[in-house]
Amino acid sequence: MKLSITGGSSFETNGNSTIYETLKANGVFLVSPCGGKGTCGKCQVKVISGGATVKSYGKLGQQERHDGITLACQTSATSDLHIEIPEHSKLVLGGKIAVSIFKDTVAYLQSYGVSIDPLAKRVSLTLPPPSIQDNIGDLQRLCRSLEEMGITNMRFAHKFVSTLMETLREGGFNTIVSYSKQNDTVCDAISAYPPAHPNGRFGLAIDIGTTTVVVYMVDIANGAVIDIGSTYNSQTKYGDDVITRIVHATEGGGLADLRNTVVGDINTIIDFQCGKHNIESRHVEAAVISGNTTMTHIFWGLNPASIREDPYIPTVNYYPLWHGSQARLAINQQAAVYTAPSVASYVGGDIVTGILASKMHRSPGISLFMDIGTNAEVAIGNDEWIMTAACSAGPCFEGGGIKFGMRATQGAIESIKIDPATLTPSVSVIGGGVPTGICGSGMIDAIVELYKHGIINQKGVFNPAKTPLVREGEDGLEFLIYRDIIQQRDIVLTTVDMENLIRAKAAIFAGVSLLLREAGLTLDVLERVYVAGGFGNSLNIEKAVMLGMIPDLPSDKYIFLGNTSIIGAYLTLMSDTLRGELESIASRMTYIELSVVGGYMDEYMSAMFIPHTDLSKFPSVAAALGL
Amino acid sequence: MKLSITGGSSFETNGNSTIYETLKANGVFLVSPCGGKGTCGKCQVKVISGGATVKSYGKLGQQERHDGITLACQTSATSDLHIEIPEHSKLVLGGKIAVSIFKDTVAYLQSYGVSIDPLAKRVSLTLPPPSIQDNIGDLQRLCRSLEEMGITNMRFAHKFVSTLMETLREGGFNTIVSYSKQNDTVCDAISAYPPAHPNGRFGLAIDIGTTTVVVYMVDIANGAVIDIGSTYNSQTKYGDDVITRIVHATEGGGLADLRNTVVGDINTIIDFQCGKHNIESRHVEAAVISGNTTMTHIFWGLNPASIREDPYIPTVNYYPLWHGSQARLAINQQAAVYTAPSVASYVGGDIVTGILASKMHRSPGISLFMDIGTNAEVAIGNDEWIMTAACSAGPCFEGGGIKFGMRATQGAIESIKIDPATLTPSVSVIGGGVPTGICGSGMIDAIVELYKHGIINQKGVFNPAKTPLVREGEDGLEFLIYRDIIQQRDIVLTTVDMENLIRAKAAIFAGVSLLLREAGLTLDVLERVYVAGGFGNSLNIEKAVMLGMIPDLPSDKYIFLGNTSIIGAYLTLMSDTLRGELESIASRMTYIELSVVGGYMDEYMSAMFIPHTDLSKFPSVAAALGL
Repeated sequence: MKLSITGGSSFETNGNSTIYETLKANGVFLVSPCGGKGTCGKCQVKVISGGATVKSYGKLGQQERHDGITLACQTSATSDLHIEIPEHSKLVLGGKIAVSIFKDTVAYLQSYGVSIDPLAKRVSLTLPPPSIQDNIGDLQRLCRSLEEMGITNMRFAHKFVSTLMETLREGGFNTIVSYSKQNDTVCDAISAYPPAHPNGRFGLAIDIGTTTVVVYMVDIANGAVIDIGSTYNSQTKYGDDVITRIVHATEGGGLADLRNTVVGDINTIIDFQCGKHNIESRHVEAAVISGNTTMTHIFWGLNPASIREDPYIPTVNYYPLWHGSQARLAINQQAAVYTAPSVASYVGGDIVTGILASKMHRSPGISLFMDIGTNAEVAIGNDEWIMTAACSAGPCFEGGGIKFGMRATQGAIESIKIDPATLTPSVSVIGGGVPTGICGSGMIDAIVELYKHGIINQKGVFNPAKTPLVREGEDGLEFLIYRDIIQQRDIVLTTVDMENLIRAKAAIFAGVSLLLREAGLTLDVLERVYVAGGFGNSLNIEKAVMLGMIPDLPSDKYIFLGNTSIIGAYLTLMSDTLRGELESIASRMTYIELSVVGGYMDEYMSAMFIPHTDLSKFPSVAAALGL
Repeated sequence: MKLSITGGSSFETNGNSTIYETLKANGVFLVSPCGGKGTCGKCQVKVISGGATVKSYGKLGQQERHDGITLACQTSATSDLHIEIPEHSKLVLGGKIAVSIFKDTVAYLQSYGVSIDPLAKRVSLTLPPPSIQDNIGDLQRLCRSLEEMGITNMRFAHKFVSTLMETLREGGFNTIVSYSKQNDTVCDAISAYPPAHPNGRFGLAIDIGTTTVVVYMVDIANGAVIDIGSTYNSQTKYGDDVITRIVHATEGGGLADLRNTVVGDINTIIDFQCGKHNIESRHVEAAVISGNTTMTHIFWGLNPASIREDPYIPTVNYYPLWHGSQARLAINQQAAVYTAPSVASYVGGDIVTGILASKMHRSPGISLFMDIGTNAEVAIGNDEWIMTAACSAGPCFEGGGIKFGMRATQGAIESIKIDPATLTPSVSVIGGGVPTGICGSGMIDAIVELYKHGIINQKGVFNPAKTPLVREGEDGLEFLIYRDIIQQRDIVLTTVDMENLIRAKAAIFAGVSLLLREAGLTLDVLERVYVAGGFGNSLNIEKAVMLGMIPDLPSDKYIFLGNTSIIGAYLTLMSDTLRGELESIASRMTYIELSVVGGYMDEYMSAMFIPHTDLSKFPSVAAALGL
């Protein structure tokens, strides 16, 4: 059967595959934070013609169903099917912000003052051809030439050796050998090629977030980022946060499900990138994995159960350098796969790569680093010491748990202004056009604007007397932000959304406060505040301060870094020196368990107000509001 | 359907399996040098009752077919089948000679003056349980304790780490870790066990011969050999010698066939041994492979094509320490699998282990080492230098290419005397009873006796005028050695057998002569002559000298070692010091390519007589024969 798309392509499908699966298999990605479970209601498509069976309509309303809207993950074709994909359902791969703010990654790599020395290296060898007099075996002959180049103690996997005879003879005993260095004394051979072989060589920087997955395909010869892919982490169908994932993993077979799911997401992107750029998968010889402790454990199929049990111990902090085959990645099976080391169960490799990307570990001045993603982690330190902690902020700034929440990609409302006279909002949308949802920065804007104009109170409770835009919705009071007249679709912020957002901002601020206290520091010593995570450039500091989410500091101290996990993975991929720096950062980071140091709940409860119960902590806000 | 055996067991079978396959799968092995191809005619069974389909009767005569004899590899049951296995069809596993002459292997190991330090080691660790204060990951915790024991730079495979969390907690953070040492700086973790776990630990010494495979199951804690298994190398169905194996390997898919075949043979023995001794396969943590260059290449799935092409270069001489999974052995998948290094394409690891087993590398006096198996390799040297060469002797002394040839196991005629008066032979049979064939030492005896009594001439040609026991057979003249009246089965030596045997002995003597010449030595400097191979103790030196196969030296200089490849593999398995000695032997061995040093054909042609054209080389023979 055929599945065709208005203005687009046509694919083979069958009754056993959902439309969602068929599209995904063909490189067409839909918005689906629930990963195709039918609960988020976001993978909407419109049936134009043909037959289909629908398992469930989920959250879809009467009008939408009447208009032929269905959920792609719940619908399978029964005959040739023609559909239309609304703008708000399209997942934009490589959206500008979730990926990295560093447009020129090569220049950023150069700014570290290190030379290009990628995880997978290559050396070109001219072996003397064998003779009766010089009749040592092929592998020994290779080793002899490597040793002449100063490369000793190379280890050769069985797979490498099993094709060596043909490779050496194909190249007339000239060969190119790729390898990775484990440490000063040991290195691992990856592949041997005849020299006539096209010598493209590639590596992957992979950020495995709880909510999203980002993959950079990199030309490791020069550091050029060839392509950027990103998708939702399909594990979200098993739960939004790491705790529910761990619970699922420890149930029978759940770990294998979760592992297959995220590896599948990554391989989908890799296959797509290799196909698009005509890259042979065996020429992808290295990968760096950066993710939180739970995500990296699941990626490697390691049981994460002990991560959530007191005393919260992961199986691995420092990962051995394993291979493509064990990672199950669709790359060279001998590829070096490096995993960014984690500090503790709730401060993972993504924070360590983040600090590498911020350069705060190189500066004598004291900096604060905040990564606000599905969870929030904070770190304080300089070139001598770093302290770190995890805050239970939840995924709402990435769109999780927010009715119209979404990542900061095309179609997201990224800022909101409310007209003081009419109290009607006007919105600015990423990429322009009709908005399809609201991202983290838009949510912060919205709360602050609503608070400034008295539409919500200090606790975030709606005042329906203020404007008719506050109305009774399905889940209690809600505020109408945008009405899409054509699609007949309202974008709103609900009471539940408001509660989630205030809890999240309180957790972040309480974490920062407690970490400062543990370090024996006050806010005024901070020279820089690095903000990482999905916000990218679009977070309005003044508004975030007004919300009470981040410290009340001059805006010129704030630096936005976007997704530092992916850029840190990229840096680690491209330089062994920076890989060494990464490991040194991890070993220097002292983890503070907020729940045991005392005083956390007090800090948290005090931060559950806008901006805070103690206004002296927010002098600029007090002044601006005339309080 | 049932397959039952007179006086024995009963097994499930089906129409798709041959009797041979069904018996083999159940641990009942039949003589079958052709590996079940239907050409050697040796896997005879007698059908007592039941229905069967027979693909081919091969070489079976009218009488045998009339008596219900059929070839097990060509016959499948069509209903419940009852059979009888004649003595001469039974393959005796662990026959006393093909295996090793060293009955007390532990004592022999001790005679080297080294301590027990097997390839797979174990260390018992008590880790401090984790706490909020001491919250490093499990793997780091393990490494910390290992480093306190002085074990650094251990490498952890993905499979090891993937069960670490459960293992550590099961043992309350007490654990036993097994590992192997790659070299002074690197070692590889194999498995971790909770301490309550039964701590049996096992290793395998494996000799892969062109014709036979021998497996020692060893308790590596103390060196005790728990069981010995041996079988024909089923690769023989693709050809008797290494050259035809290489040809088959280089044809499409042939390499995979050959590899699967020999790995299957070994795994059949391992499964049998594990089952018999109640050993969990994951507790078999180490294996040492000893074989000629072609056999080890095929075992690892390495293309052996270049071994037979000038300048005769193998892919590997020194093998990396690979693992159970890559070896495809039915043992711990992380087990250390060490391969004895080879010297050249035709002097393999079996000769290096052989020299280790002979101790000639430790003696200042000069020794000659001869391994006469499917091929013949020779070495001359002492504790400073060793020279080695390969002779194209072929497999006839192991029974290959000889009509009634067999290994020196139960039922083999091992010596023959011809009555001077009646010219009738009397035989001595290994294990007593009715003979089923003739082994190498029996063949040598036979030729010498036939020559002494004028039944053959100097070139090995039969004289039918001498005795009616020389008769016209299927392949020309033959000599009747034994008539089995009950089975109505004659054991003969044919003209073709005679030609093969003289060619083989000539190749061996020519090799020894040329190697001595290259070393600039004469026979009188030799202090010892070590004879390895299937002959074991039963070679009559006087007769072998009379045949002109081995140098004319006093018999007290000759020492018989039997299968030195398996005992050398055992020594290597049990001691890292001896493993180091093995590698030092390999690096000291200088390979002489007989075909290029000149004069080989002259030496060979001169040796095609009994004992030799130049009788001055055999003074004791000349004296004895009054020549």
